[in-house]
Amino acid sequence: MSEKPASADVYELEFSVRDYECDLQGIVNNAVYQNYYEHARHQFLLGKKIDFATLHNEGIDLIVIRVEIDYKYSLRSGDLFKVTVTTHQEGALRLVFEQDIFKLPENKLISHAKVTGVGLNHGRPMKLEAVPGFEELI
Amino acid sequence: MSEKPASADVYELEFSVRDYECDLQGIVNNAVYQNYYEHARHQFLLGKKIDFATLHNEGIDLIVIRVEIDYKYSLRSGDLFKVTVTTHQEGALRLVFEQDIFKLPENKLISHAKVTGVGLNHGRPMKLEAVPGFEELI
Amino acid sequence: MSEKPASADVYELEFSVRDYECDLQGIVNNAVYQNYYEHARHQFLLGKKIDFATLHNEGIDLIVIRVEIDYKYSLRSGDLFKVTVTTHQEGALRLVFEQDIFKLPENKLISHAKVTGVGLNHGRPMKLEAVPGFEELI
Amino acid sequence: MSEKPASADVYELEFSVRDYECDLQGIVNNAVYQNYYEHARHQFLLGKKIDFATLHNEGIDLIVIRVEIDYKYSLRSGDLFKVTVTTHQEGALRLVFEQDIFKLPENKLISHAKVTGVGLNHGRPMKLEAVPGFEELI
Repeated sequence: MSEKPASADVYELEFSVRDYECDLQGIVNNAVYQNYYEHARHQFLLGKKIDFATLHNEGIDLIVIRVEIDYKYSLRSGDLFKVTVTTHQEGALRLVFEQDIFKLPENKLISHAKVTGVGLNHGRPMKLEAVPGFEELI
Repeated sequence: MSEKPASADVYELEFSVRDYECDLQGIVNNAVYQNYYEHARHQFLLGKKIDFATLHNEGIDLIVIRVEIDYKYSLRSGDLFKVTVTTHQEGALRLVFEQDIFKLPENKLISHAKVTGVGLNHGRPMKLEAVPGFEELI
Repeated sequence: MSEKPASADVYELEFSVRDYECDLQGIVNNAVYQNYYEHARHQFLLGKKIDFATLHNEGIDLIVIRVEIDYKYSLRSGDLFKVTVTTHQEGALRLVFEQDIFKLPENKLISHAKVTGVGLNHGRPMKLEAVPGFEELI
Repeated sequence: MSEKPASADVYELEFSVRDYECDLQGIVNNAVYQNYYEHARHQFLLGKKIDFATLHNEGIDLIVIRVEIDYKYSLRSGDLFKVTVTTHQEGALRLVFEQDIFKLPENKLISHAKVTGVGLNHGRPMKLEAVPGFEELI
């Protein structure tokens, strides 16, 4: 019995496909999913008061070092979908974002991504626990 | 009689259409032409040693205030084309870029753009003749 | 005296700026505004039951032949804004979309666009009144 | 002793970064690398006379099911770089593209990608050896 429902930990953001995001084949271009995933991550981080610009001014940059995306089904013009975000720590330095895209309203899994980020302090790898605002993420 | 043929004054840059630039209808999306026009303008300016970053550090920003684009024919996946750039002054403050896109090798006119830019010195409109490097453009 | 307030005729769609839409200067790239304007037009047309794919299958294509955009102020990362759409006829063949972008919540005018479209029936210009669904637009 | 040097098997395509591909941080946005990788793959396939449109008309679609990208260094405005492509088979159904991005002229490794594709015959997975033109790739 879980006292904390899984869903409480999952950030979700809804989108709809815009025509200019579709390609020759009438489906959303593969690279555009990375835009969706990134926008959901940034909104998630903003909700945690983690702001790239502010951190940058303190000499800290958050960068993505690896992206893995599985494409299961395609999104098409006009489709409504949500992007989820959860995070966990990998070692002392890596923050992993696990993300899914579900087509709505049927909640069909369209794509999964694992995105690995690190923090750099004036260009040097830093422990995640030292990044302001990361307490909740790791 | 001109000793310098007109063509000598026209900057040209060649491109080819990339698949991800095409949309549902199999043709280049209208907004992508603005990318092509911008890239050609920036390369043209770089060739004149006019660099946005350097100017910015001196407090000068070059910004576009108006774009007019006529779409005559469409570009498709794989098409080869060139973008041309010429400039002239409009009043003391406005630099106008007249640009064309021609499909190659047949030199068919695909689109024409008139792009109007101004220089801002710490946010205030400045005379074009005061922008470093603009002597040749106006 | 109008019994129908002007605002009743203005379609509006809200957006927020996504980080990947911003460029080197930290502002939304000029070409991205065309994406915003296009998405608002397509959503507006869908609301009128005018669907590009359906029309295409009937041999009718709606295409943009001219875009004019005035850039007054810049949008930045995270900005909330709305895009408006109104239409009127120009001659027998041209449908004009007048569109504005207003930053929210202050309703500051950021950009204005005039986008001219035509209908093609198997590649030939057609009267707007003959385009299915256009009764309300012209 | 190999009569055919390894490099003869590596397809390469040169690009230069366009300003609109850079984001707030002045570096190429992560998603844009996927555009670069895709364009290089499509050009590589075209060089092998493998054309998406022609195959599609025969009921065969080539789709990407997984992308893994490692980001080692960033590309910046104006950078010249090349994208490489090699392929190998994984099982009977999967074609793997191994791709690198090297900054020029110093040949510094910027990013690596492993892209996995499959062929679908009227929506069903098909053996790679049955895809017209794939003889050389597997």
